Amino acid sequence: MQPPLITLTTDFGSDSHYVAQMKGVILGICPNARVVDITHRVAPQDIAQAAWILRQVLASFPADTCHVAVVDPGVGTSRSIVLARIAAQFFVAPDNGLLWPLAQQSAPEWIRQLTRREFWALNPTPTFHGRDIMAPVAAHLGQGVSPAELGALVSQLVPLAAEGPRRTDQGLEGRVVFVDAFGNLITNIDARSLDTLRSPIHVHLPRQGITCHGLVSTYGQRAAGELVALIGSTQQLEIAVVQGNASQRLGVELGDPVQVRD
Amino acid sequence: MQPPLITLTTDFGSDSHYVAQMKGVILGICPNARVVDITHRVAPQDIAQAAWILRQVLASFPADTCHVAVVDPGVGTSRSIVLARIAAQFFVAPDNGLLWPLAQQSAPEWIRQLTRREFWALNPTPTFHGRDIMAPVAAHLGQGVSPAELGALVSQLVPLAAEGPRRTDQGLEGRVVFVDAFGNLITNIDARSLDTLRSPIHVHLPRQGITCHGLVSTYGQRAAGELVALIGSTQQLEIAVVQGNASQRLGVELGDPVQVRD
Amino acid sequence: MQPPLITLTTDFGSDSHYVAQMKGVILGICPNARVVDITHRVAPQDIAQAAWILRQVLASFPADTCHVAVVDPGVGTSRSIVLARIAAQFFVAPDNGLLWPLAQQSAPEWIRQLTRREFWALNPTPTFHGRDIMAPVAAHLGQGVSPAELGALVSQLVPLAAEGPRRTDQGLEGRVVFVDAFGNLITNIDARSLDTLRSPIHVHLPRQGITCHGLVSTYGQRAAGELVALIGSTQQLEIAVVQGNASQRLGVELGDPVQVRD
Repeated sequence: MQPPLITLTTDFGSDSHYVAQMKGVILGICPNARVVDITHRVAPQDIAQAAWILRQVLASFPADTCHVAVVDPGVGTSRSIVLARIAAQFFVAPDNGLLWPLAQQSAPEWIRQLTRREFWALNPTPTFHGRDIMAPVAAHLGQGVSPAELGALVSQLVPLAAEGPRRTDQGLEGRVVFVDAFGNLITNIDARSLDTLRSPIHVHLPRQGITCHGLVSTYGQRAAGELVALIGSTQQLEIAVVQGNASQRLGVELGDPVQVRD
Repeated sequence: MQPPLITLTTDFGSDSHYVAQMKGVILGICPNARVVDITHRVAPQDIAQAAWILRQVLASFPADTCHVAVVDPGVGTSRSIVLARIAAQFFVAPDNGLLWPLAQQSAPEWIRQLTRREFWALNPTPTFHGRDIMAPVAAHLGQGVSPAELGALVSQLVPLAAEGPRRTDQGLEGRVVFVDAFGNLITNIDARSLDTLRSPIHVHLPRQGITCHGLVSTYGQRAAGELVALIGSTQQLEIAVVQGNASQRLGVELGDPVQVRD
Repeated sequence: MQPPLITLTTDFGSDSHYVAQMKGVILGICPNARVVDITHRVAPQDIAQAAWILRQVLASFPADTCHVAVVDPGVGTSRSIVLARIAAQFFVAPDNGLLWPLAQQSAPEWIRQLTRREFWALNPTPTFHGRDIMAPVAAHLGQGVSPAELGALVSQLVPLAAEGPRRTDQGLEGRVVFVDAFGNLITNIDARSLDTLRSPIHVHLPRQGITCHGLVSTYGQRAAGELVALIGSTQQLEIAVVQGNASQRLGVELGDPVQVRD
């Protein structure tokens, strides 16, 4: 049997000692856990972005990985915290919509509400449930505590307002959901939804008044400096400048609309 | 017996290859060590901030964790390097005041000055004792070398100029010692010192001319956008804007004064 | 036998979920791997900087460490990917010049071109070979797959345009290759090449019109605020302001020229 693999996704900011506290708690309970950071620079309290990132990374992790996601604007209120089994992996997160997009993609095997305080920190603070409830629960799960011990089954997750692209008269309209370190613009329009359009497609940025014709299969097919659209490694539509920074050059920001037409 | 747990706290900047070198040295000597980053964005050469961060994270780590802290403006001069046992954990740091606040909180079981060169890199450079002395010593300790082998006992640590809040005619005056990724303002005024004041208290930012009345117990008790004061997860007074960024909105920076009155 | 040690160096940006995907892939194949980040803030597509960083950290890692370096502007084109054995360590990188400076310093024991698709992801995307080819190959190597299984020998690496300092009539001319978190300016002029000059040497920044006379052996030899030149922990010439930020104070940037005269 493998040592437990636990990942952390938060909006605490890169290189934060808040994250270190979660790791200390995990390793204190489950000394042989392997802990991997997904990212800690989720935009503050941006539940949809955290959900989007989890969906991107899921396929790269082995079965039974436990993903702890702490984007939790309602910490200390009556929102509950859940442990869910989705796509053969575990997820611990506030029940605030964060797990909803994942659950739409792959139906949860089960969802449990965390209620068993004997698996939490002794006196959980009202402002840091990531450290005081979610980290210890993930660690106890890693130590072999059965999910049934951690809380009772619930039937539903809190939904998140729809985040996918919407169909328009002319094609699809989505938005930029992530700008990576290269300035590539990753959209919420996935490869499958493009299949409904006739080739060649045209990718349009209405706010900037820029259109990109056709898709390339890799950056290297075009010369440095050219604007291209392609299906990226996440199977989503991306807009990029070959060996350049599309976000800076086009003045595009997170959330800007993207239209696709055939 | 658990594999050794070693943490790193430095002012080398996030994602620095200087930190990676320390990890390479540690794992070369102690292959089964678990290495956890506390943070590497301590303000450059800010010994007091490093000390404050170590105090925050301490309680989240299990007994016998070895914390290596490298904020070392005097590297290469005659300042010594110490290994101390405090609160059932180990600390390796330059003896420049960094461990003083911890030692005030919990009396050291012992303090040793690192002198035994056979546990250092072969030819320590004069500019990177973190990699060449502190990392190898922590790793040898993890491998089971006895503390007594690493250097002789000393009786005292170099003190750090007082950092706690001071008592005034009207209450307490402290300062902002950390601004987190959400813009929350964490002060050096701890919950216990507030017990000497009558409720309700008033938290005043003299530089900004802003006062916040009373304490809430969690962000969720007030509407988005409201300014609140509360005891945070570190048991210290924090000032926050619910679902907003207090640092940006109020124009408060690290070091700004904070007054509490009853 | 030790668990495999795998390092990651990329230009994906700090705290990126792209890096997390590589870790997930590695741990899925090689569950007991220890994964260490060197840095992920290599300047975008700056192959020379990645090469320089790998050279800095090499000596701090134990024999048989496998370094995966993904700075890959030609991803998806016909550039090949190599596994090389250099200085008793393994390197996995695109064959785009990244490993050339290392190979100049220490002749490769062997170089293999990665061609055996059974050790890659099932359907490698054309845009993320770090995750789909390099990470799985490093993990299979860690699991004990023989290098000969991963691809056939090749005799040469693709060269990188010369990066060392050049000899001038008056001494040496190099450039600033790294600015660290303290604002220290690290040059590509190594200690050995300075041995050909008579002491005392003079370090000149032609763009800023500033000259620094002589070398100190450590920062602490001069007062706070003084400009000093010294041989840093990487055995390369550095320019620093004692307890200050040389980059900001002098207005020096990555790539700026540095001259040394006797």
